Amino acid sequence: MVKMNVESFFPENIKTALKKNPPGAWMADLPADCIRLSSGYPDPALVPAEQIKAASATLIEEEHDLPLHYLGSPRMIKLKKQIQNRLVERGISIQEDEILITAGACQAIDLIARVLLDERAVVAVESPTYMEALEIFQNYTDQIITIPVDELGMQTDVFAAVLEERKRTGLTLPNFLYTIPTFQNPTGTTMSLERRKHLLELASEFDFLILEDDAYGELAFNENPPPLKAFDTEGRVFHVGSLSKVVAPGMRIGWIAGARSFITAFEWFKKDLDHPFAQATMAAYLENVNFENRLNTLQATYRIKCDILLRSLEQYFPEQVTWYVPEGGYFVWVKIPGIDTSQLLEQALALGVSYVPGKFFFVKQQVGTEYLRLSFSYADKEEIIKGIQKLGQLFSRLLK
Amino acid sequence: MVKMNVESFFPENIKTALKKNPPGAWMADLPADCIRLSSGYPDPALVPAEQIKAASATLIEEEHDLPLHYLGSPRMIKLKKQIQNRLVERGISIQEDEILITAGACQAIDLIARVLLDERAVVAVESPTYMEALEIFQNYTDQIITIPVDELGMQTDVFAAVLEERKRTGLTLPNFLYTIPTFQNPTGTTMSLERRKHLLELASEFDFLILEDDAYGELAFNENPPPLKAFDTEGRVFHVGSLSKVVAPGMRIGWIAGARSFITAFEWFKKDLDHPFAQATMAAYLENVNFENRLNTLQATYRIKCDILLRSLEQYFPEQVTWYVPEGGYFVWVKIPGIDTSQLLEQALALGVSYVPGKFFFVKQQVGTEYLRLSFSYADKEEIIKGIQKLGQLFSRLLK
Repeated sequence: MVKMNVESFFPENIKTALKKNPPGAWMADLPADCIRLSSGYPDPALVPAEQIKAASATLIEEEHDLPLHYLGSPRMIKLKKQIQNRLVERGISIQEDEILITAGACQAIDLIARVLLDERAVVAVESPTYMEALEIFQNYTDQIITIPVDELGMQTDVFAAVLEERKRTGLTLPNFLYTIPTFQNPTGTTMSLERRKHLLELASEFDFLILEDDAYGELAFNENPPPLKAFDTEGRVFHVGSLSKVVAPGMRIGWIAGARSFITAFEWFKKDLDHPFAQATMAAYLENVNFENRLNTLQATYRIKCDILLRSLEQYFPEQVTWYVPEGGYFVWVKIPGIDTSQLLEQALALGVSYVPGKFFFVKQQVGTEYLRLSFSYADKEEIIKGIQKLGQLFSRLLK
Repeated sequence: MVKMNVESFFPENIKTALKKNPPGAWMADLPADCIRLSSGYPDPALVPAEQIKAASATLIEEEHDLPLHYLGSPRMIKLKKQIQNRLVERGISIQEDEILITAGACQAIDLIARVLLDERAVVAVESPTYMEALEIFQNYTDQIITIPVDELGMQTDVFAAVLEERKRTGLTLPNFLYTIPTFQNPTGTTMSLERRKHLLELASEFDFLILEDDAYGELAFNENPPPLKAFDTEGRVFHVGSLSKVVAPGMRIGWIAGARSFITAFEWFKKDLDHPFAQATMAAYLENVNFENRLNTLQATYRIKCDILLRSLEQYFPEQVTWYVPEGGYFVWVKIPGIDTSQLLEQALALGVSYVPGKFFFVKQQVGTEYLRLSFSYADKEEIIKGIQKLGQLFSRLLK
């Protein structure tokens, strides 16, 4: 009998990945009754539980066992049309076979990485960026180029310089850029129209693809900027969207919209099959909701909650602290000079408030120690005020 | 502007995979009203549509928005316990953190391949075997060892000889064996107890892992043989199960049960997150069903349908034709000497009957031309008789 050595069964690339931070390291264990300013969850009052209950009842009454098999529910086809129609509203004109339904944006990002990255590939990301996307890319490659974000979104001129330099010195150019141009996670900033156009020019010039994560794009306080995909004449942009932030994350419905030859390849490697019950229930829900009205409600609610959070920051946080004012989405990105926010999380949790320490949004984590991400989506108004007040006291004490 | 070349964005291993047969090539487009002897779908009358409707209603009434967020539904935890309890019934004693919920068996197989295979790795499979598993493994490696199956399941003595020979000549030993020991897909055969024990001895001696696909294991006509996992003292076996064949595939609920260090690694790379609505609805369904009674009904129904199919084969098929008599599961594996079944599918479909040509279950497809897989699970009794009659006429004409 050979004594089994678990490690010996993993290929080298998997061994390397498993030595990095485990997934979800940024997710603290929250005490009961904690005010969750960390969670990127929708407002519980805006999750349409009753309508989804009604939708699943209608689904079974009308389709019987069909949505419980592998294939065959007419509403699985309908969901694609409904998403296609939503994309038209966003200025994206695309055929049905250019859309792949995924289990949320996360699976979409992983699938694109699975097909386009290997350990020799280079990927470009914004800095800071969505920590789960970073985790995914790090499972495939160590070669991650980071491009800074300011109040107008990703600095495309910096990206241009990096690309020029890599080209000049013969370094591999990125296979794709991962960007959240609208109401970015975590900064809340939105890429200007000028930079959007610049970015598409760069993609064409330096021959790379763009993974546009548009999970928050419909949650504008004022105006919805056009997604990058709306400017894409060459088929270089993958529009990754999700119903998690505008309907309910527990349904796990997202998509990739992109050029057919890529969609075919992504579908090839998507091995969880379709999710008929969830997809058809979502279609049944969408056919009975006025989505524009729903978006108006979401936008108004989140605008008010964001305002409350920003006013509370002004009132309770020490004056050295700065932040970006978001124009939509779920998040406010805060800088607390001289403080390591990851060191203070435990104390914040003891006070009954959670946030996400900034470092998790950076490839080189030491860069992000002075930042933290606050979410106004999940907590209610009173909780937001109370939570910011408590955090303000904690930080004020330390900044004296 | 650079003219975009889609191929240039794919890494070499992906390009190689994309040159193979596209996924689902074995799935013919079925004309309306076709008698589906090809489909591995459960009997529509046995899919508990009304109970699932009631379960999702109960779920929302009791948990409100909880199962619609990313996390937080108590029934997501409950589902794991329910699966753990089912595994105990099958002789598998395992902790909750040794179980990973997946979107059916397919995602489970893909996840194990994702973590344990690269292009240098060797995997062993039964021949013939489940075509979707073959597609998955071929996405990772070309080094697939095939071990023949007879009426007592995989021929472990052949496997032993292959392992000895590879060891002697310094060839890479397989990382894992993929097997469906019980009511195998497509042959319907069941591995004998003696061979099961032999296989575990081989795993220990030659230091490989075993992916046990047990999707049909609870669908015995007489006795449920113990799964390989029940004999696993070294943590070498991954028990992959699914509720697709015993409840409803459209819910997409499966699992991997295995040693903790592997489960942790699989979880690391599972990027579609949990599926709260589907998982919690399944938990709510399971808490209100007497599962033993349900299994008895399933077993009795499929036994009768299998008998009808076998009797029809005897009555209508030419005498040169042979098949294995299954003791459970969904399938009958038929050999029609001298006929290429893939060439005849079009004619069969024109007669209104479908089957799966045998070649798709083999790595080297030319080996399997004389076989076909028939399923007695989906079609009703009258359809089975009519379908076999039509196929019998077709084959009799050709074998004259």
